[in-house]
Amino acid sequence: MKFIEKLEKAIKKNDSLVCVGLDTDVKKIGKGKNQFLFNKEIIKATNDLVCSYKLNAAFYESIGHKGIESLKKTCDYLKTNHPEIPIIIDAKRADIGNTNEGYVQFIFTHLKADALTIHPYLGQEAIRPFLNQLDKGIIILCRTSNPGAGEFQDLEVKGTPLYKIVAKQVTRKWNTNGNCLLVVGATYPKELREVRRIVGQEMFFLVPGIGAQGGDIKSTLKAGLNNRKTGLIINSSRGIIFADNPREEAKKLKSEINQYRN
Amino acid sequence: MKFIEKLEKAIKKNDSLVCVGLDTDVKKIGKGKNQFLFNKEIIKATNDLVCSYKLNAAFYESIGHKGIESLKKTCDYLKTNHPEIPIIIDAKRADIGNTNEGYVQFIFTHLKADALTIHPYLGQEAIRPFLNQLDKGIIILCRTSNPGAGEFQDLEVKGTPLYKIVAKQVTRKWNTNGNCLLVVGATYPKELREVRRIVGQEMFFLVPGIGAQGGDIKSTLKAGLNNRKTGLIINSSRGIIFADNPREEAKKLKSEINQYRN
Repeated sequence: MKFIEKLEKAIKKNDSLVCVGLDTDVKKIGKGKNQFLFNKEIIKATNDLVCSYKLNAAFYESIGHKGIESLKKTCDYLKTNHPEIPIIIDAKRADIGNTNEGYVQFIFTHLKADALTIHPYLGQEAIRPFLNQLDKGIIILCRTSNPGAGEFQDLEVKGTPLYKIVAKQVTRKWNTNGNCLLVVGATYPKELREVRRIVGQEMFFLVPGIGAQGGDIKSTLKAGLNNRKTGLIINSSRGIIFADNPREEAKKLKSEINQYRN
Repeated sequence: MKFIEKLEKAIKKNDSLVCVGLDTDVKKIGKGKNQFLFNKEIIKATNDLVCSYKLNAAFYESIGHKGIESLKKTCDYLKTNHPEIPIIIDAKRADIGNTNEGYVQFIFTHLKADALTIHPYLGQEAIRPFLNQLDKGIIILCRTSNPGAGEFQDLEVKGTPLYKIVAKQVTRKWNTNGNCLLVVGATYPKELREVRRIVGQEMFFLVPGIGAQGGDIKSTLKAGLNNRKTGLIINSSRGIIFADNPREEAKKLKSEINQYRN
């Protein structure tokens, strides 16, 4: 099954655009505590409320191979118990051609994840090993959520800012297998609207920046939804997983989002 | 000690600009063979001929946590037996601010490496956790060695291609701690010359693309050397580590390079 089909099924089943970000920071869960066991509890509490889970590789790599084992165990747990929920690995990789095969092996063969985030800077030719994964989602950084995102992303090439050129290239040239998505931060609703205009109605965006980073739900939804009231994967990490009641926070976010989808 | 000082000492001691790339592809060394043991043999054979070792994370991640253990063991082995040789982790990371702390932990605390490669797309504000590492080398992708590098890197902003803008920003704004280096591929000697002109004589470049990728030694050295006949870390991976006699290949590369340094 294509990644987008799997994602749309999950969105429909749980009536949700919420992606829970398992940014399981060892400093926050307590040193020596197991990242996988923490994740399992979050997954048990939220799996009927989400369209996907996103695991940011940095929080697992931080402690070396033991973290990578927890990442793997979390993916295995999801595949066994909730195979219908897509797993996104937010690893922001990208190297030259042959080297990317190593990342493809790690993310899609070893972890058996469904999607991966990547940097665009090296161009399509370099990242073809990712784009060749027909049934996987390849999520390209377009407009990132950080305050200083504009340093290069806003530079204008013949009047068009770089992030829009990335959106155009991905839509017109990279997406021949229908497996590309874009990262566009909730902290930039104006830019989100521009990107939706460029890419049309089919493409999905992974949207970080809600919650702790200050992104607003209403303006994100108004700017980014497609004409089927989907097209967005709205990620929340810290705001859910470190809340006193993660289930309640996920539920709240889901219904806050859904009021703009009806 | 600053990374650049450590690097210059290693260059002087071994009279070499050669960096051996430990791209220890499990498919090439044979499944089940241990990446660390392979690396140890290469290090034993070449440690008096190099200015640094570079480990590309993709080749270790490809097999999951066991590969990360081999990566760690290789770094530990180098730190114990050859503490004077800088270790570069070619991981091409970059996320938003707080998340990068995880990569800092992994690369500099866990692996105890000396330098890391990163993507520039998110801007200085995001990658500050890397730039704050005073004694580490932060190596920013500027002009990559792949054939399709120009898709974004050559786009002109008011007449200046993006890779040159990256070089300018890094030199003038990012390098306040004197710990920045740039990646410029040997496959683009003209661009290498341009970047040397922009950044001046102090900054070092990590130069991939010699050998299998087709980069020419003479034109690379002519274009990239600084006025002290250093300023370049010339990487060769496959061409050395999978040769019948890795020591002879490293020696050959070292002397081929040094004929342009005298």
